[in-house]
Formats: sequence, structure tokens, C-alpha cells
Amino acid sequence: MPARNAFYAQSGGVTAVINATACGLIQEARRHPDNIGKVLAGRDGIIGALTEDLIDTSLETDEAIARLRSTPGGAFGSCRYKLKSLEDHRAQYERLIEVFKAHDIGYFFYNGGNDSMDTAWKVSQIAEKLGYPVVCVGVPKTVDNDLPLTDCCPGFGSVAKYVATSIREAGYDVASMARTSTKIFVLEVMGRHAGWITAACGLASENAGEPPHILLFPEVPFDPARFLARVQACVDQYGYCTVAVSEGLSDADGKLIADSGTKDAFGHSQLGGVGQIVAQLIKDKLGYKYHWALADYLQRAARHLASKTDVEQAHALGVAAVDLALQGKNAVMATIERLADTPYRWRIGEAPLKDVANVERKMPAEFIAADGFHITDACRTYLQPLIAGEEPPPYRDGLPDYVRLNNKSVEKKLPEFKI
Amino acid sequence: MPARNAFYAQSGGVTAVINATACGLIQEARRHPDNIGKVLAGRDGIIGALTEDLIDTSLETDEAIARLRSTPGGAFGSCRYKLKSLEDHRAQYERLIEVFKAHDIGYFFYNGGNDSMDTAWKVSQIAEKLGYPVVCVGVPKTVDNDLPLTDCCPGFGSVAKYVATSIREAGYDVASMARTSTKIFVLEVMGRHAGWITAACGLASENAGEPPHILLFPEVPFDPARFLARVQACVDQYGYCTVAVSEGLSDADGKLIADSGTKDAFGHSQLGGVGQIVAQLIKDKLGYKYHWALADYLQRAARHLASKTDVEQAHALGVAAVDLALQGKNAVMATIERLADTPYRWRIGEAPLKDVANVERKMPAEFIAADGFHITDACRTYLQPLIAGEEPPPYRDGLPDYVRLNNKSVEKKLPEFKI
Repeated sequence: MPARNAFYAQSGGVTAVINATACGLIQEARRHPDNIGKVLAGRDGIIGALTEDLIDTSLETDEAIARLRSTPGGAFGSCRYKLKSLEDHRAQYERLIEVFKAHDIGYFFYNGGNDSMDTAWKVSQIAEKLGYPVVCVGVPKTVDNDLPLTDCCPGFGSVAKYVATSIREAGYDVASMARTSTKIFVLEVMGRHAGWITAACGLASENAGEPPHILLFPEVPFDPARFLARVQACVDQYGYCTVAVSEGLSDADGKLIADSGTKDAFGHSQLGGVGQIVAQLIKDKLGYKYHWALADYLQRAARHLASKTDVEQAHALGVAAVDLALQGKNAVMATIERLADTPYRWRIGEAPLKDVANVERKMPAEFIAADGFHITDACRTYLQPLIAGEEPPPYRDGLPDYVRLNNKSVEKKLPEFKI
Repeated sequence: MPARNAFYAQSGGVTAVINATACGLIQEARRHPDNIGKVLAGRDGIIGALTEDLIDTSLETDEAIARLRSTPGGAFGSCRYKLKSLEDHRAQYERLIEVFKAHDIGYFFYNGGNDSMDTAWKVSQIAEKLGYPVVCVGVPKTVDNDLPLTDCCPGFGSVAKYVATSIREAGYDVASMARTSTKIFVLEVMGRHAGWITAACGLASENAGEPPHILLFPEVPFDPARFLARVQACVDQYGYCTVAVSEGLSDADGKLIADSGTKDAFGHSQLGGVGQIVAQLIKDKLGYKYHWALADYLQRAARHLASKTDVEQAHALGVAAVDLALQGKNAVMATIERLADTPYRWRIGEAPLKDVANVERKMPAEFIAADGFHITDACRTYLQPLIAGEEPPPYRDGLPDYVRLNNKSVEKKLPEFKI
């Protein structure tokens, strides 16, 4: 059987290690020239496939591909673009197959979260219906750690390491300043629906009294009075209080706290400011000076502080995706299976795409302490291995030396397609 | 001459490397037991001296002191508390001397910024007037890099490395997302009066088009129309735009932009949100989706990403302070002298405290590009060595392993003093 080309696309919010997955996938494909021709990447994700804007990764050197392992962001571009239902938007799916056909694509690798696994599943279905042979393999990626049937999601471990490190460091700072100045520090972190990232902050607190003192999860309705009482107790006991809050913190009615607070000069609600809202609440009610930080993209782009476990798993999943495809495993997602907590052992597994698609994994209730303000030992046991180890990028002139690919386009063969 | 004790205090906002200075100072003092007895540290800075709340550092192991080199924050506590004029607040100065006398303190090391150098200078004067022999040596520390007569200030280089790394990493992220989602990223950084930290962000942009695309300095009055035109040009040319903005950005009348924008639910002006204000301005006028980050304490506490140059200089200044004191050099500050840019060479120098006190070093006008939106090559040449090299802390269980000292108090000998 002659070698056929592969199509690879990055989807949704990027991470510190999604390029490590691309690295593993392209390296493994290059090891199998008898089966896989070129790896073509979608420019800006699946949009690149729909518009036939394909990047020829074969033009990149082995060295450049190797450097993807330590480069954050999405090297080929990503997108927030969800293919809708097969019934109503069949033309889009047919276009994908048409592009695959035009470029002899026999393997489809989709690197993303829930939506992407759903798309990959649908593509595998339509291909079958149309009689076009393509092996569809999903590769997990999401800082939100919310995919089912995998022990964890690449990208999460590095965000976890970053936020836990950051709140530990800020804790050392505010502890020094608390006597005459700032007594409160609030760090706002990502995770709109699930508190995985908020929980990870809790790893920094190994002994009673160590920052962070309070975690505000999206899973726990915000109760200002209880919260303020806890803040007061921390200041009384330790002289200061550090808080990690999820952007998704909501009240008992499920309304986002971020929407309930300040208005800008035009009367619009402010987004992304729940950290400041809870800090200002403390200032107004308890009178303490505060500082707050909004990590935003820094947390998911911080390749300089990536978890070695995370980098290794991201890379291994890229390799595994190719291996699964070469075994003819269609409509599956490569997964991480945990074999043991201590010492941590894991291996690659697989799960049917149809069982992954659109299923959101929640954080188990037993991971949140009874008072709702911290994590349990069970949670620590789960999280700890995911932030373990360091794999710093190379530095040049004092800054991380990240690669930029050439990203040369493949010549188009089809008429234009409006998306 | 019998050995006399030393007093060491940390002052003002802490940094990622102020403890490296403490480390060098205590280590060097321990090498001179014939001249220096114990190093007593002020708990929470100079307040510890006024209240006779002294920490006996001789009770800490050599290993614990060595670990200070890689621990952020202020290990003995700091304070924002400025001793006022000698004329009106003579009692405070006399109290200091009284405490020094009670604990046989012959060396006063004050580790801080402009105000602290002023205090150290005044203490040397009052000691002379009162006939109490104490050698006063200032040790520079400030992330704002605004002390005169030293080539740079410990703490700055590490913040510089952190912000430049962060905006580079976030730039890789937003570049990936720009096609269908976020086109604008804004990072707000410290530096209320001087744009050193904002300038440091510019180091991440080595070639045309690389993030950050726009720097908003406190030295350059904010002109919304010119700014928006530049943002539009960046999006047109590169598909996205990244901005680093100083918290001290002001309008042509010198009014802080942070004060001009949003009000909270109670009608108070919001502080610390200039990043969001300029991002929202872009959204309102150009319609682009934005993300913004507020690094706040994370930038000055990020020991995990400290500059090796900065750590080495901070440590060397601690050592040098002791050596200067042992040479009987009174009322001086240890400084960094730059000998060459490339390859970078530096040595320790000294400057009279009276020439340092209350003088703020501004960023030279020739460091800001003619259009006001970026740095010049001269600025790069100055900044580059300061972020060079890495000296990561030890890690344990995936997180930086920072030391907490025991900080045992010395027994008080004097009546209480109200501050």
C-alpha cells in the first residue's frame, strides 16, 4: 500500500505543550515513510482544512520539529470554530473529505478538547458514509483537564505547576509586606466550569497556614459572609491571607460573580475581573489593602515552567496517535492511563471517540474539602504527579528560545470554499 | 577590638533576590567572627529596630542561610515605613540608637530603595551627633531600578526577565488564536514613575513584528488616537497586537489613566486596571476581542525565573556591604559598576549615601524610540546583560523549594516604644 499523507490540526485554546504533541506526532510520522507521506497541518486549525490552507511540515527541518517540544502556543495556528451537526452542515463535512481526497490524506489527527473529539468522530462517520478511507485519531489537549476516559489532559499539568508556583511565590511576597502594607493577595485563574486549575493552586500549601489559604471553586457557590469570616480568621492567625479564585466563581443562582460587580465607564459589565471583585469586597468590608493578579494567557503559555510529566505525556500522545493510526485504529482518542500514584506510573491507552465526544469530566466532589475552601488529600494524590519535574526550554540572551516554523503552504487544488 | 553585632533590615517592596543579598551579607559576616558578632535582623524591617523586635540570625543553620539565595520575598519581613525628618522626629532616630546601644550594634545595613538610603544617611548623622559609633552601609534593592550612582538595582533584572519572558510566551499564544478569536493581548506591569520594567518587555521583540508590538511608558503621555492607529496597523500587518503597559501610564496632564476609567459598584475609581482600560478601549473603538493579564506581585516574586546576573549581583552586594563596613566605610551604599556591555563585565563600587538619598534615576530619553512606542538599541544594550543567565531554585514535588527561617526573637532589654 503506498504511503498516504496525514492531516494534523490544533484546536481551541492553545497550551504550553500542544506543540510537544505536534513534535511527537511529526517525528513518529517521519519514522514511517513507507506508510505516511507528508504531515500537512491546518493553518489555524480545522479552518485550514475547510479553506484548503494546508502547511507542508515536510519542509521543516528535524531540528525545527524537535524544538516544537519546548515552544508554547500553537505552531500552525488554532481556532475556535466548531463544526456543527452533520445533518444541518453536511456541506462542511463533505468539503473536508474533498480536501482530504485532493491531498491524498489517509490520516486525520485532531488535537483538541471535547468539541474537537466530537468533530473527529463526525468526520470518521461521514468518511465512512462517503466511502472515503481515512483513519481519524483524536489527541487530547485542554488546560481545563475536562476530557473523560483519560487520566489527565496535556496542557493542564503545566498550568497547574504555573499557578501553584505563582501563588507560592506571591505568598512569600505578601507575607513580607503584611505588617504595614498589603495583607491580601488574590490570584485569578482559568477554568470557567471546572475547578481543576483552582485546585492545583492548593498544591502550594503543604502545611497549615501556607498560601494559598482560600480556594474559591466554580463548583462551590460563593457565600460572601462565610468567605469574609475565613479571610478575617486567616489575617488574625497568620497576619495575611492569600486567595486563588476561579474565573468561573458563581453565586447560589449560578450567576457569574465576574458579571455582578463593576461596570466600566460605558455601563458594561466587566469580564475577567472576579479576582478584583473579591479583593475589593475584602477591602470594603474588612478594610485590608490588597493586591491581585490576573494570570490569563500567561498561565497556559508558560512553557518556561512546564511540568516535565506534562511535556512527556503531550509528546507521547503525539507519537501514540500515529502508532494507533498505523494499526488502523479508527475513531479513537489516545489517552493517559494511570497505573500508580506513588511512585507515579502511566501508560498510553485509547478510548472510542464517540464515548469522549461532548462529555465533560467534572472534578470529583471528594476533591474539595468539606468547608469548600481547599483541596483534600485525595485531590493532592491525583494532582501531584502531574506537576512533577522540570524540562526548561533552551535560553538565548536571557530569554526562552522558541522556534517559529516557516509554515509554507501547499498549493491549492480546489475551488474556494466560504466558511 | 571586640566583635560587635550587626543590624540588617529589609525595606519597601520585596523582590525575587533581596534574600540573596541577605544571604551574602550573613555569610560574609559569619566569615568574620573576630569583627562581627551576631547579625540581628529587624522583624518587618526598620519597625523591628524601633520596637526592639530583633531576629537572631545566628540561630539559623548555614544551610538555611544558603537557601535564602534562592528564596523570594523578604525572609525577615519588610515594611513601608519611612522615618521622617530628623528635626521633627528626632525621638525615632534616638530610639534607633538606643536599641543599637542595648544590643551592641556596630554595623547598620539597610537594604532598600531611595527612602531607605535617606534613612541610613540620617542614622549615620544622628549617630555621629550622639557620639555612638556605628558604621551605616546601604544595600540597593528595588525592582524599579531607580537608584542613582549604581548601574542597576538588584531585583530589577529578575522582574525584567519575567516580564519579557511572559509577553513573549503570551505572544506565541495570541498569535495562534488571532484568526478567529483573541487578536489583542495586554500585559500590565509595574513601574509607576519610570518605564524600566515596561522597557524590559521590549527585549522579547528581537525582530520586526515580534511581540510586544507596543510599549506604553509612564514617560510618554497616552494619546488614544495615535495608540489605536498603531494597534490597527499591527493587526493589519501581523494579524494581532500585543501591548505592554506601565501601571503609571498617564495622560498629557499627568493624570493616571488607571484613575480615569472604570468605577466600581460603589463609584470608587479602580486602581491597577490600566491594562484592562487600554484593552477595553481597543475593543470599543476597533472591535477586537482582547485578553489582558496583570502580573502584579507575580513579577517581583518570580524567583523561579530569576536572572542569574541579578542573583549574583544581589548576593555580591550583600557580601560587599560587610566588606565595606569592615573597612570602616561609613555612610556609603554598595553599587554595581558596569565595565563593559559585550561581553558584560561588572564590579562592586560604592557611593556616598548623601548623594543617593532621595534621588530618583529616570530612564534616559534616548532609551525610548522616537515614536514613543518601543525601546532603542541603546536601551537593549543596557538591559540585555541584566536578564542574562538562569539560576533556578531547587524543586521538590514539582514546586520551587523555598526556605522559611525560624526567625527567633532576641530578648528585649528596653521599655516599649510606640511607633
